[in-house]
Amino acid sequence: MATSILITSARILRPDFTLGFGDIYIEDGRIAEIGKVSVEAEETIDATNKLAMPGLVNLHTHSGMGLLRGANDDLELAPWLERLWKIEAKLTPELVYWGSMLSLLEMIKTGTTTFLDMYQDLDQTAKACEDLGIRGFLAWPIVDEDKTTQKGKPLDNAKKFIKDWKNHELVTPGVGPHAIYSCNPENLARAKDLADKEKTFIHMHLAETRWENETTLETYGKRPVPLLDSIGFLDDNDIFAHGTWVTKNEIQTLAKAQVKIAHCPTSNMKLATGGVMPWKEMKEAKLTVGLGTDSVVSNNNLDMFEEMKFAALLQKAHRWDQAVLNAKEALQMATLEGAKALGLDYGLEEGRSADLVLVDLRSVSMVPHHDLISNLVYSASGSVVTHTVVNGKLVMKDRKVEGEKEIIEQALKLAQNFLIE
Amino acid sequence: MATSILITSARILRPDFTLGFGDIYIEDGRIAEIGKVSVEAEETIDATNKLAMPGLVNLHTHSGMGLLRGANDDLELAPWLERLWKIEAKLTPELVYWGSMLSLLEMIKTGTTTFLDMYQDLDQTAKACEDLGIRGFLAWPIVDEDKTTQKGKPLDNAKKFIKDWKNHELVTPGVGPHAIYSCNPENLARAKDLADKEKTFIHMHLAETRWENETTLETYGKRPVPLLDSIGFLDDNDIFAHGTWVTKNEIQTLAKAQVKIAHCPTSNMKLATGGVMPWKEMKEAKLTVGLGTDSVVSNNNLDMFEEMKFAALLQKAHRWDQAVLNAKEALQMATLEGAKALGLDYGLEEGRSADLVLVDLRSVSMVPHHDLISNLVYSASGSVVTHTVVNGKLVMKDRKVEGEKEIIEQALKLAQNFLIE
Repeated sequence: MATSILITSARILRPDFTLGFGDIYIEDGRIAEIGKVSVEAEETIDATNKLAMPGLVNLHTHSGMGLLRGANDDLELAPWLERLWKIEAKLTPELVYWGSMLSLLEMIKTGTTTFLDMYQDLDQTAKACEDLGIRGFLAWPIVDEDKTTQKGKPLDNAKKFIKDWKNHELVTPGVGPHAIYSCNPENLARAKDLADKEKTFIHMHLAETRWENETTLETYGKRPVPLLDSIGFLDDNDIFAHGTWVTKNEIQTLAKAQVKIAHCPTSNMKLATGGVMPWKEMKEAKLTVGLGTDSVVSNNNLDMFEEMKFAALLQKAHRWDQAVLNAKEALQMATLEGAKALGLDYGLEEGRSADLVLVDLRSVSMVPHHDLISNLVYSASGSVVTHTVVNGKLVMKDRKVEGEKEIIEQALKLAQNFLIE
Repeated sequence: MATSILITSARILRPDFTLGFGDIYIEDGRIAEIGKVSVEAEETIDATNKLAMPGLVNLHTHSGMGLLRGANDDLELAPWLERLWKIEAKLTPELVYWGSMLSLLEMIKTGTTTFLDMYQDLDQTAKACEDLGIRGFLAWPIVDEDKTTQKGKPLDNAKKFIKDWKNHELVTPGVGPHAIYSCNPENLARAKDLADKEKTFIHMHLAETRWENETTLETYGKRPVPLLDSIGFLDDNDIFAHGTWVTKNEIQTLAKAQVKIAHCPTSNMKLATGGVMPWKEMKEAKLTVGLGTDSVVSNNNLDMFEEMKFAALLQKAHRWDQAVLNAKEALQMATLEGAKALGLDYGLEEGRSADLVLVDLRSVSMVPHHDLISNLVYSASGSVVTHTVVNGKLVMKDRKVEGEKEIIEQALKLAQNFLIE
């Protein structure tokens, strides 16, 4: 694959979301130059009528579930969970690998360059990141030992996973205590210690449902956020998925600790978790809130363009306020805020890591050009992305990803292996 | 264009939503044969790995606003309306024509074969239907004479429009009293008389906002539905857009009169109209409820795949119930129910009008194949559509529509003419 790429004549979405125009020269994984560039590159892409923008950051998903799309929908919570567990019990490392490949392929095809994940057999997802060339932050799942299906102790496995993948070019291993209801406070504290010791991040589900809040209160005498606060768990290395059911006081606690939130509006709506994440209050508290699709079981796609629209429209509908979350803020959540949550070296600036995508400005959903950011958020789907560059490598060119046919065929074949009923 | 088409080896979505397999032979606008077909056609399409399904029916839009996409977002209601009116005042018939062309192109590219519309200079939209070959039900807008920008009297214009386009192969002209707040009861009655006399349909906005209900109550002493009932307006030729703010009793009134509803969940959410259309109660009352995107100003796309997802997820989120509106019901709304509302000769059966689309089953968002209907509703976007057939004619082939480049360039050029500020 080319190690130098010259993108010519692009509209450019600058870090402050104003629009520029010019060439982008990429070398050794970095944006070497933006402007009028006159060097020769191994690969040249004519970006006339295209917008160059930073790649989208999917801040919460479970790629390994890729083969489960459409296998479990529209049930009430209890039968839905029961059915999901039955299906998941059939997953082998091979199925998780090809599920991950399918999920990563979908992300690349819809403009995501970095994602945050937590799922079983996560080493398979890490391999898929290598094979497809996308950036993964992967939190090894920790649950209580009586609940795990992992061989060996989850914390030991996490330690090994971090050792195996530390300092990898594309994969950043982390620690993923699943949730308060599946990981007791002692176990949470041990997970935190491991993350601290390894200087890595924590990813965890938090305050997703009213049920979670109520059982936590019943079991521990505290709601989720105060419980985590009381064991010293909250700090700026935590990225919590959902954060739907939190109070204003709890938002203050989270903001003070500088934790990060991965908002998953589509998943929350589809799973009917009730309530709506209090984004306005989080914004006022200056919390970092990124955006995640969650998995193909609860969404059912990984298209961050659609996710931006759901994020904005859910808040508008909920607050009866057209202005409450605007297009620019939705795009910030899906790009800059997610990048900030993960500490990425990010944005279309010289010297930054080259994680970017090209969008077809002649695609019907991007026309006319009154407001390109509005078009990206409210009109486009991920199909407007024509090229995806991760870490300076072209992983999608003219909508084609190397090996995609094999991934599709494998996914179709293997998905039949765990059909239930 | 070919008047006979043979589609071979397709997965087929049957009218009862079970899946079949076979060839589809189309001749003189109709589905002549389904099964193993051995005739020669002017055009043959290999549909291996494709799903043939009936074309989607967009039951509420304003195509003529096509050039306004992204021109007006994220404002509060008052400044939003003020800005919209300023922009609309600049629209000429030419701009409405090219706006319609852009909208119709987008619908064809996302699998819509029939749409219901109401907007100024609707004869331009009718011409666009002819030029692009899509089926339009077009309701000439009626507003009170002190509110109209039309030359001449709206009712006279409607009469002429109906005369001009009656019995057209693709265009069905109707009467479009805009809304209760823009069309007084005497005017509504006259519009109804005209529709009755011409044996055509009525399309109208109804009970979209709480404000509409309150002002109607203040002005006429009745809420919108009882007011229409009291003037004998309600019958099975009425198709009402929105119907968001209605009571259980009003639903009974609407059901008894057999009116049809065009549900526009994305628009309702984006415009923050408050409340959520009581779909469950409408279903129980056996009301016919189709699905509409509304215009590119309030959505901002015309993708009925996305609209299905918004419809299902909005109800789930609102009711805290994953099962309340399932994928099959969402697909029914976007196909069979819309077709029923318009009285279309519809569905993949021999003898029916050939209005159908092909979907790429190897598109990443359609994989794997546990449940194709779930994939269509929850995972796909309109970009999975590869071919669109309307009235037996192939209007999109391998994602290409004749003349699309010119439409895009014209739209981009002309949209600059009415930029404001």
